[in-house]
Amino acid sequence: MNKKAIILLSGGLDSATCCAIAKDHGYLLYAISFDYGQRHNVELDAAKRVADYFSVVEHKVIRIDGSVMATSSLTSKISVPKNRDIDSDLEIPNTYVPARNTVFLAYALAYAETLGSQDIFIGVNALDYSGYPDCRPAYIAAFETMANLATKAGVEGKKLTIHAPLIHLTKAQIIRQGVGLGLDYGITHSCYDPSPNGLACGECDSCILRKKGFAEAGVQDPTVYRGALS
Amino acid sequence: MNKKAIILLSGGLDSATCCAIAKDHGYLLYAISFDYGQRHNVELDAAKRVADYFSVVEHKVIRIDGSVMATSSLTSKISVPKNRDIDSDLEIPNTYVPARNTVFLAYALAYAETLGSQDIFIGVNALDYSGYPDCRPAYIAAFETMANLATKAGVEGKKLTIHAPLIHLTKAQIIRQGVGLGLDYGITHSCYDPSPNGLACGECDSCILRKKGFAEAGVQDPTVYRGALS
Repeated sequence: MNKKAIILLSGGLDSATCCAIAKDHGYLLYAISFDYGQRHNVELDAAKRVADYFSVVEHKVIRIDGSVMATSSLTSKISVPKNRDIDSDLEIPNTYVPARNTVFLAYALAYAETLGSQDIFIGVNALDYSGYPDCRPAYIAAFETMANLATKAGVEGKKLTIHAPLIHLTKAQIIRQGVGLGLDYGITHSCYDPSPNGLACGECDSCILRKKGFAEAGVQDPTVYRGALS
Repeated sequence: MNKKAIILLSGGLDSATCCAIAKDHGYLLYAISFDYGQRHNVELDAAKRVADYFSVVEHKVIRIDGSVMATSSLTSKISVPKNRDIDSDLEIPNTYVPARNTVFLAYALAYAETLGSQDIFIGVNALDYSGYPDCRPAYIAAFETMANLATKAGVEGKKLTIHAPLIHLTKAQIIRQGVGLGLDYGITHSCYDPSPNGLACGECDSCILRKKGFAEAGVQDPTVYRGALS
Protein backbone atom coordinates (compact mmCIF):
# COMPACT_ATOMS: atom_id res chain seq x y z
CA MET A 1 0.00 0.00 0.00
CA ASN A 2 1.27 3.45 -0.83
CA LYS A 3 2.38 5.60 2.07
CA LYS A 4 0.49 8.79 2.84
CA ALA A 5 2.22 12.17 2.64
CA ILE A 6 0.89 15.45 3.99
CA ILE A 7 1.85 18.34 1.70
CA LEU A 8 1.72 21.97 2.81
CA LEU A 9 0.18 23.45 -0.31
CA SER A 10 0.17 27.21 -0.80
CA GLY A 11 -0.48 27.03 -4.52
CA GLY A 12 2.92 28.53 -5.29
CA LEU A 13 5.78 27.21 -7.36
CA ASP A 14 7.59 25.52 -4.48
CA SER A 15 4.69 23.62 -2.94
CA ALA A 16 3.54 22.46 -6.39
CA THR A 17 7.05 21.11 -7.00
CA CYS A 18 6.82 19.33 -3.63
CA CYS A 19 3.65 17.65 -4.81
CA ALA A 20 5.41 16.49 -7.96
CA ILE A 21 8.34 15.10 -5.96
CA ALA A 22 6.17 13.30 -3.39
CA LYS A 23 3.99 11.86 -6.15
CA ASP A 24 7.10 10.72 -8.01
CA HIS A 25 8.21 8.96 -4.80
CA GLY A 26 4.94 7.02 -4.82
CA TYR A 27 3.15 8.70 -1.94
CA LEU A 28 -0.59 9.17 -1.72
CA LEU A 29 -0.99 12.94 -1.40
CA TYR A 30 -3.02 14.71 1.31
CA ALA A 31 -2.81 18.47 0.81
CA ILE A 32 -3.38 21.13 3.44
CA SER A 33 -3.79 24.84 2.66
CA PHE A 34 -4.48 27.81 4.91
CA ASP A 35 -6.74 30.78 4.66
CA TYR A 36 -5.12 33.11 7.19
CA GLY A 37 -6.36 36.43 5.88
CA GLN A 38 -3.48 36.73 3.39
CA ARG A 39 -3.87 39.57 0.89
CA HIS A 40 -2.96 37.12 -1.87
CA ASN A 41 -5.68 34.63 -0.99
CA VAL A 42 -6.08 34.09 -4.73
CA GLU A 43 -3.28 31.58 -4.07
CA LEU A 44 -5.98 29.31 -2.62
CA ASP A 45 -7.50 29.02 -6.12
CA ALA A 46 -4.08 27.95 -7.35
CA ALA A 47 -3.82 25.48 -4.45
CA LYS A 48 -7.08 23.93 -5.61
CA ARG A 49 -5.82 23.72 -9.20
CA VAL A 50 -2.60 22.05 -8.03
CA ALA A 51 -4.52 19.65 -5.78
CA ASP A 52 -6.74 18.68 -8.72
CA TYR A 53 -3.74 18.38 -11.06
CA PHE A 54 -2.10 15.85 -8.75
CA SER A 55 -5.36 14.05 -7.87
CA VAL A 56 -4.74 14.38 -4.15
CA VAL A 57 -6.79 12.08 -1.93
CA GLU A 58 -7.96 15.00 0.20
CA HIS A 59 -7.40 18.75 0.16
CA LYS A 60 -8.04 20.46 3.46
CA VAL A 61 -8.36 24.24 3.52
CA ILE A 62 -7.99 25.38 7.10
CA ARG A 63 -9.25 28.77 8.21
CA ILE A 64 -6.94 30.50 10.63
CA ASP A 65 -7.68 33.51 12.79
CA GLY A 66 -5.01 35.81 11.36
CA SER A 67 -5.37 38.35 14.17
CA VAL A 68 -2.51 36.64 16.02
CA MET A 69 -0.22 37.24 13.00
CA ALA A 70 -1.32 40.73 12.07
CA THR A 71 2.03 42.54 12.01
CA SER A 72 2.86 41.42 8.47
CA SER A 73 2.23 43.25 5.20
CA LEU A 74 0.62 40.01 4.00
CA THR A 75 -2.01 40.11 6.76
CA SER A 76 -2.58 43.85 7.24
CA LYS A 77 -2.70 47.12 5.32
CA ILE A 78 1.08 47.69 5.48
CA SER A 79 2.48 47.98 1.92
CA VAL A 80 4.31 45.03 0.40
CA PRO A 81 7.89 46.10 -0.49
CA LYS A 82 8.58 46.33 -4.22
CA ASN A 83 11.75 45.94 -6.29
CA ARG A 84 13.84 45.09 -3.24
CA ASP A 85 17.43 44.04 -3.87
CA ILE A 86 17.04 40.59 -2.36
CA ASP A 87 20.69 39.63 -2.68
CA SER A 88 22.11 42.59 -0.78
CA ASP A 89 19.26 43.63 1.55
CA LEU A 90 19.54 40.99 4.23
CA GLU A 91 16.91 42.40 6.58
CA ILE A 92 13.86 40.18 7.10
CA PRO A 93 11.15 42.04 5.12
CA ASN A 94 7.72 43.02 6.45
CA THR A 95 6.17 40.18 4.46
CA TYR A 96 7.39 37.92 7.29
CA VAL A 97 4.34 36.46 9.08
CA PRO A 98 4.89 35.65 12.78
CA ALA A 99 5.28 31.90 13.35
CA ARG A 100 3.46 31.08 10.12
CA ASN A 101 5.28 27.88 9.23
CA THR A 102 5.08 26.72 12.85
CA VAL A 103 1.29 27.11 12.86
CA PHE A 104 1.05 25.42 9.44
CA LEU A 105 3.35 22.53 10.40
CA ALA A 106 1.51 22.09 13.71
CA TYR A 107 -1.75 21.51 11.81
CA ALA A 108 0.08 19.22 9.38
CA LEU A 109 1.42 17.25 12.35
CA ALA A 110 -2.07 16.77 13.79
CA TYR A 111 -3.37 15.79 10.35
CA ALA A 112 -0.48 13.35 9.84
CA GLU A 113 -1.01 11.63 13.16
CA THR A 114 -4.76 11.45 12.56
CA LEU A 115 -4.21 9.79 9.16
CA GLY A 116 -1.35 7.56 10.31
CA SER A 117 1.10 9.37 8.02
CA GLN A 118 4.76 9.72 8.99
CA ASP A 119 5.74 12.10 6.18
CA ILE A 120 5.15 15.83 5.88
CA PHE A 121 6.43 17.75 2.85
CA ILE A 122 7.11 21.49 2.97
CA GLY A 123 8.45 23.54 0.09
CA VAL A 124 10.73 25.89 2.00
CA ASN A 125 14.02 26.92 0.48
CA ALA A 126 16.93 28.74 2.01
CA LEU A 127 18.77 30.00 -1.06
CA ASP A 128 16.48 32.06 -3.31
CA TYR A 129 14.27 33.30 -0.46
CA SER A 130 13.36 36.35 1.60
CA GLY A 131 15.36 35.41 4.69
CA TYR A 132 12.41 34.13 6.71
CA PRO A 133 13.78 32.30 9.76
CA ASP A 134 11.21 29.51 9.45
CA CYS A 135 12.59 28.44 6.07
CA ARG A 136 16.06 27.50 7.33
CA PRO A 137 17.41 23.94 7.75
CA ALA A 138 18.02 24.40 11.50
CA TYR A 139 14.38 25.37 12.02
CA ILE A 140 13.06 22.38 10.06
CA ALA A 141 15.33 20.02 11.99
CA ALA A 142 14.20 21.50 15.32
CA PHE A 143 10.54 21.17 14.33
CA GLU A 144 11.06 17.51 13.45
CA THR A 145 12.75 16.83 16.81
CA MET A 146 9.92 18.56 18.66
CA ALA A 147 7.26 16.77 16.61
CA ASN A 148 8.62 13.35 17.49
CA LEU A 149 8.42 14.22 21.20
CA ALA A 150 4.94 15.72 20.82
CA THR A 151 2.90 12.82 19.57
CA LYS A 152 1.66 9.40 20.63
CA ALA A 153 2.92 8.15 17.25
CA GLY A 154 6.39 9.48 18.10
CA VAL A 155 6.36 7.79 21.52
CA GLU A 156 5.37 4.54 19.82
CA GLY A 157 8.40 4.75 17.52
CA LYS A 158 6.54 5.76 14.36
CA LYS A 159 9.05 8.43 13.46
CA LEU A 160 7.76 11.47 11.63
CA THR A 161 9.95 13.06 8.95
CA ILE A 162 9.66 16.62 7.75
CA HIS A 163 10.74 16.51 4.11
CA ALA A 164 12.04 19.78 2.73
CA PRO A 165 13.32 18.58 -0.64
CA LEU A 166 13.87 22.10 -2.02
CA ILE A 167 15.71 23.57 0.94
CA HIS A 168 19.17 23.54 -0.65
CA LEU A 169 18.05 24.25 -4.23
CA THR A 170 18.04 27.51 -6.15
CA LYS A 171 14.75 28.60 -7.69
CA ALA A 172 16.13 27.64 -11.12
CA GLN A 173 16.98 24.13 -9.90
CA ILE A 174 13.50 23.81 -8.40
CA ILE A 175 11.88 24.80 -11.68
CA ARG A 176 14.07 22.42 -13.68
CA GLN A 177 13.12 19.59 -11.33
CA GLY A 178 9.41 20.38 -11.63
CA VAL A 179 9.57 20.64 -15.41
CA GLY A 180 11.45 17.34 -15.48
CA LEU A 181 8.54 15.80 -13.59
CA GLY A 182 6.07 17.22 -16.11
CA LEU A 183 4.70 20.00 -13.94
CA ASP A 184 2.94 22.89 -15.68
CA TYR A 185 3.77 25.97 -13.58
CA GLY A 186 0.97 27.90 -15.29
CA ILE A 187 -1.40 26.56 -12.64
CA THR A 188 0.63 28.05 -9.75
CA HIS A 189 0.55 31.51 -8.17
CA SER A 190 3.44 33.26 -6.39
CA CYS A 191 2.69 37.01 -6.16
CA TYR A 192 2.21 38.59 -2.71
CA ASP A 193 0.31 41.56 -4.06
CA PRO A 194 -1.84 40.58 -7.02
CA SER A 195 -4.44 42.86 -8.57
CA PRO A 196 -8.07 42.06 -7.83
CA ASN A 197 -8.21 40.02 -11.03
CA GLY A 198 -5.27 37.90 -9.82
CA LEU A 199 -2.51 39.31 -12.03
CA ALA A 200 0.98 39.13 -10.53
CA CYS A 201 2.66 42.47 -9.68
CA GLY A 202 6.10 41.44 -10.94
CA GLU A 203 7.82 43.53 -8.27
CA CYS A 204 7.41 41.85 -4.87
CA ASP A 205 10.06 39.46 -3.53
CA SER A 206 8.04 36.48 -4.57
CA CYS A 207 7.61 37.68 -8.18
CA ILE A 208 11.29 38.69 -8.38
CA LEU A 209 12.40 35.24 -7.23
CA ARG A 210 10.00 33.55 -9.61
CA LYS A 211 11.10 35.59 -12.63
CA LYS A 212 14.78 35.10 -11.77
CA GLY A 213 14.21 31.36 -11.40
CA PHE A 214 12.60 30.93 -14.80
CA ALA A 215 15.25 33.12 -16.43
CA GLU A 216 18.12 31.19 -14.86
CA ALA A 217 16.49 27.85 -15.64
CA GLY A 218 16.03 28.85 -19.28
CA VAL A 219 12.37 27.94 -19.01
CA GLN A 220 9.59 30.18 -20.31
CA ASP A 221 7.74 31.83 -17.39
CA PRO A 222 4.01 31.17 -17.92
CA THR A 223 3.06 34.02 -15.53
CA VAL A 224 1.31 37.13 -16.85
CA TYR A 225 2.71 40.10 -14.94
CA ARG A 226 0.73 43.34 -14.61
CA GLY A 227 3.56 45.51 -15.92
CA ALA A 228 3.83 43.42 -19.07
CA LEU A 229 0.35 44.56 -20.11
CA SER A 230 0.88 48.30 -19.72
CA MET B 1 6.62 48.73 32.26
CA ASN B 2 5.26 45.30 33.04
CA LYS B 3 6.22 42.52 30.71
CA LYS B 4 3.53 40.76 28.70
CA ALA B 5 2.85 37.07 29.17
CA ILE B 6 0.77 34.85 26.90
CA ILE B 7 -1.16 32.26 28.92
CA LEU B 8 -2.68 29.15 27.38
CA LEU B 9 -6.02 29.19 29.18
CA SER B 10 -8.26 26.14 29.06
CA GLY B 11 -10.34 27.18 32.05
CA GLY B 12 -9.08 24.22 34.07
CA LEU B 13 -7.32 24.08 37.39
CA ASP B 14 -3.81 24.11 35.96
CA SER B 15 -4.13 27.01 33.54
CA ALA B 16 -5.91 29.09 36.21
CA THR B 17 -2.98 28.43 38.55
CA CYS B 18 -0.62 29.53 35.75
CA CYS B 19 -2.53 32.82 35.56
CA ALA B 20 -2.11 33.28 39.31
CA ILE B 21 1.63 32.57 39.11
CA ALA B 22 2.26 34.86 36.11
CA LYS B 23 0.21 37.64 37.73
CA ASP B 24 2.17 37.19 40.96
CA HIS B 25 5.38 37.60 38.93
CA GLY B 26 4.11 40.98 37.71
CA TYR B 27 3.25 40.10 34.13
CA LEU B 28 0.44 41.69 32.14
CA LEU B 29 -1.70 38.73 31.12
CA TYR B 30 -2.83 37.95 27.56
CA ALA B 31 -4.93 34.79 27.55
CA ILE B 32 -5.55 32.49 24.59
CA SER B 33 -8.18 29.74 24.55
CA PHE B 34 -9.22 27.29 21.83
CA ASP B 35 -12.54 26.06 20.58
CA TYR B 36 -11.47 22.89 18.78
CA GLY B 37 -14.73 20.99 18.89
CA GLN B 38 -14.00 19.55 22.34
CA ARG B 39 -16.95 17.76 23.95
CA HIS B 40 -16.28 19.72 27.14
CA ASN B 41 -16.45 23.12 25.46
CA VAL B 42 -18.16 24.31 28.63
CA GLU B 43 -14.53 24.83 29.69
CA LEU B 44 -14.57 27.96 27.52
CA ASP B 45 -17.10 29.51 29.92
CA ALA B 46 -14.67 28.74 32.73
CA ALA B 47 -11.84 30.24 30.68
CA LYS B 48 -13.85 33.45 30.42
CA ARG B 49 -14.49 33.47 34.17
CA VAL B 50 -10.79 32.97 34.87
CA ALA B 51 -9.82 35.67 32.35
CA ASP B 52 -12.21 38.09 34.04
CA TYR B 53 -11.02 37.07 37.51
CA PHE B 54 -7.44 37.97 36.62
CA SER B 55 -8.38 41.08 34.61
CA VAL B 56 -6.39 39.94 31.58
CA VAL B 57 -5.58 42.64 29.03
CA GLU B 58 -6.99 40.53 26.21
CA HIS B 59 -8.62 37.11 25.95
CA LYS B 60 -8.47 35.55 22.51
CA VAL B 61 -10.70 32.57 21.78
CA ILE B 62 -9.39 30.88 18.64
CA ARG B 63 -11.61 28.58 16.61
CA ILE B 64 -9.77 25.55 15.30
CA ASP B 65 -10.91 23.13 12.63
CA GLY B 66 -10.93 19.99 14.79
CA SER B 67 -11.23 17.66 11.79
CA VAL B 68 -7.43 17.29 11.75
CA MET B 69 -7.54 16.01 15.36
CA ALA B 70 -10.61 13.83 15.17
CA THR B 71 -9.23 10.54 16.51
CA SER B 72 -9.69 11.53 20.16
CA SER B 73 -12.62 10.81 22.45
CA LEU B 74 -12.58 14.55 23.22
CA THR B 75 -13.22 15.47 19.58
CA SER B 76 -15.41 12.59 18.37
CA LYS B 77 -18.13 10.21 19.54
CA ILE B 78 -15.69 7.68 21.05
CA SER B 79 -16.49 7.21 24.77
CA VAL B 80 -14.31 8.92 27.37
CA PRO B 81 -12.77 6.24 29.64
CA LYS B 82 -14.12 6.20 33.19
CA ASN B 83 -12.62 5.14 36.53
CA ARG B 84 -9.29 4.30 34.95
CA ASP B 85 -6.47 3.33 37.30
CA ILE B 86 -4.20 6.19 36.31
CA ASP B 87 -1.26 5.07 38.44
CA SER B 88 -0.97 1.57 37.00
CA ASP B 89 -2.46 1.90 33.49
CA LEU B 90 0.39 3.55 31.62
CA GLU B 91 -1.17 3.45 28.16
CA ILE B 92 -1.88 6.86 26.61
CA PRO B 93 -5.70 7.05 26.82
CA ASN B 94 -8.02 7.87 23.94
CA THR B 95 -8.52 11.38 25.36
CA TYR B 96 -5.15 12.19 23.78
CA VAL B 97 -5.69 14.76 21.01
CA PRO B 98 -3.17 14.64 18.13
CA ALA B 99 -0.61 17.45 18.36
CA ARG B 100 -2.96 19.57 20.46
CA ASN B 101 -0.36 21.39 22.54
CA THR B 102 1.79 21.93 19.44
CA VAL B 103 -1.08 23.65 17.64
CA PHE B 104 -1.93 25.68 20.77
CA LEU B 105 1.68 26.70 21.41
CA ALA B 106 2.16 27.59 17.72
CA TYR B 107 -0.72 30.08 17.97
CA ALA B 108 0.68 31.35 21.27
CA LEU B 109 4.05 31.85 19.57
CA ALA B 110 2.51 33.91 16.77
CA TYR B 111 0.52 35.93 19.32
CA ALA B 112 3.64 36.47 21.46
CA GLU B 113 5.73 37.73 18.55
CA THR B 114 2.89 39.96 17.37
CA LEU B 115 2.60 41.53 20.84
CA GLY B 116 6.34 41.69 21.49
CA SER B 117 6.04 39.21 24.36
CA GLN B 118 8.88 36.81 25.16
CA ASP B 119 7.01 34.71 27.71
CA ILE B 120 4.46 31.97 27.17
CA PHE B 121 2.92 30.12 30.13
CA ILE B 122 1.46 26.64 29.79
CA GLY B 123 -0.03 24.63 32.65
CA VAL B 124 1.21 21.17 31.69
CA ASN B 125 2.29 18.78 34.37
CA ALA B 126 4.07 15.47 34.12
CA LEU B 127 3.28 13.88 37.48
CA ASP B 128 -0.48 13.70 38.09
CA TYR B 129 -1.40 13.44 34.40
CA SER B 130 -2.72 11.11 31.72
CA GLY B 131 0.62 10.37 30.09
CA TYR B 132 0.16 12.73 27.15
CA PRO B 133 3.51 13.08 25.36
CA ASP B 134 3.06 16.83 24.85
CA CYS B 135 3.03 17.45 28.61
CA ARG B 136 6.58 16.21 29.25
CA PRO B 137 9.64 18.37 30.01
CA ALA B 138 11.55 17.12 26.95
CA TYR B 139 8.70 18.19 24.69
CA ILE B 140 8.46 21.67 26.22
CA ALA B 141 12.23 22.14 25.92
CA ALA B 142 12.17 21.03 22.26
CA PHE B 143 9.31 23.41 21.49
CA GLU B 144 11.24 26.31 23.03
CA THR B 145 14.34 25.48 20.97
CA MET B 146 12.27 25.29 17.78
CA ALA B 147 10.40 28.51 18.62
CA ASN B 148 13.60 30.49 18.96
CA LEU B 149 14.71 29.33 15.51
CA ALA B 150 11.26 30.01 14.00
CA THR B 151 10.80 33.70 14.58
CA LYS B 152 12.24 37.06 13.58
CA ALA B 153 12.24 37.90 17.30
CA GLY B 154 14.37 34.82 17.98
CA VAL B 155 16.83 35.73 15.21
CA GLU B 156 17.09 39.21 16.71
CA GLY B 157 18.06 37.75 20.08
CA LYS B 158 14.75 38.37 21.86
CA LYS B 159 14.68 34.93 23.41
CA LEU B 160 11.30 33.36 23.98
CA THR B 161 10.74 31.28 27.10
CA ILE B 162 8.07 28.62 27.49
CA HIS B 163 7.22 28.68 31.19
CA ALA B 164 5.75 25.43 32.52
CA PRO B 165 5.74 26.25 36.24
CA LEU B 166 3.61 23.23 37.20
CA ILE B 167 5.48 20.60 35.25
CA HIS B 168 7.20 18.99 38.24
CA LEU B 169 4.39 19.53 40.77
CA THR B 170 1.75 17.08 41.97
CA LYS B 171 -1.87 18.16 41.64
CA ALA B 172 -1.95 18.73 45.41
CA GLN B 173 1.07 21.02 45.25
CA ILE B 174 -0.51 22.94 42.36
CA ILE B 175 -3.71 23.44 44.36
CA ARG B 176 -1.82 24.56 47.46
CA GLN B 177 0.12 27.07 45.37
CA GLY B 178 -3.06 28.45 43.80
CA VAL B 179 -4.84 28.70 47.15
CA GLY B 180 -1.78 30.45 48.55
CA LEU B 181 -2.13 33.02 45.78
CA GLY B 182 -5.80 33.54 46.62
CA LEU B 183 -7.27 31.63 43.70
CA ASP B 184 -10.87 30.41 43.99
CA TYR B 185 -10.95 27.11 42.10
CA GLY B 186 -14.74 27.24 42.02
CA ILE B 187 -14.49 29.24 38.79
CA THR B 188 -12.51 26.50 36.99
CA HIS B 189 -13.70 23.42 35.08
CA SER B 190 -11.78 20.15 34.61
CA CYS B 191 -14.20 17.41 33.52
CA TYR B 192 -13.78 15.86 30.05
CA ASP B 193 -17.34 14.58 29.91
CA PRO B 194 -19.70 16.98 31.66
CA SER B 195 -23.50 16.71 31.51
CA PRO B 196 -25.29 19.22 29.30
CA ASN B 197 -25.76 21.46 32.34
CA GLY B 198 -22.00 21.47 32.92
CA LEU B 199 -21.82 19.13 35.93
CA ALA B 200 -18.56 17.18 36.25
CA CYS B 201 -18.77 13.40 35.80
CA GLY B 202 -16.38 12.59 38.64
CA GLU B 203 -15.04 9.53 36.80
CA CYS B 204 -12.86 10.66 33.86
CA ASP B 205 -9.07 11.04 34.27
CA SER B 206 -9.41 14.76 34.68
CA CYS B 207 -12.03 14.50 37.47
CA ILE B 208 -10.05 11.72 39.19
CA LEU B 209 -6.88 13.83 39.20
CA ARG B 210 -8.78 16.87 40.42
CA LYS B 211 -10.49 15.03 43.27
CA LYS B 212 -7.24 13.34 44.30
CA GLY B 213 -5.44 16.69 44.24
CA PHE B 214 -7.93 18.42 46.54
CA ALA B 215 -8.00 15.42 48.89
CA GLU B 216 -4.19 15.26 49.13
CA ALA B 217 -3.91 19.02 49.53
CA GLY B 218 -6.46 18.97 52.34
CA VAL B 219 -8.44 21.66 50.54
CA GLN B 220 -12.21 21.46 50.09
CA ASP B 221 -13.05 20.66 46.44
CA PRO B 222 -15.58 23.26 45.25
CA THR B 223 -16.68 21.06 42.34
CA VAL B 224 -20.18 19.59 42.24
CA TYR B 225 -19.90 16.09 40.78
CA ARG B 226 -22.86 14.42 39.11
CA GLY B 227 -22.64 11.28 41.26
CA ALA B 228 -22.79 13.33 44.43
CA LEU B 229 -26.35 14.39 43.59
CA SER B 230 -27.78 10.93 42.97
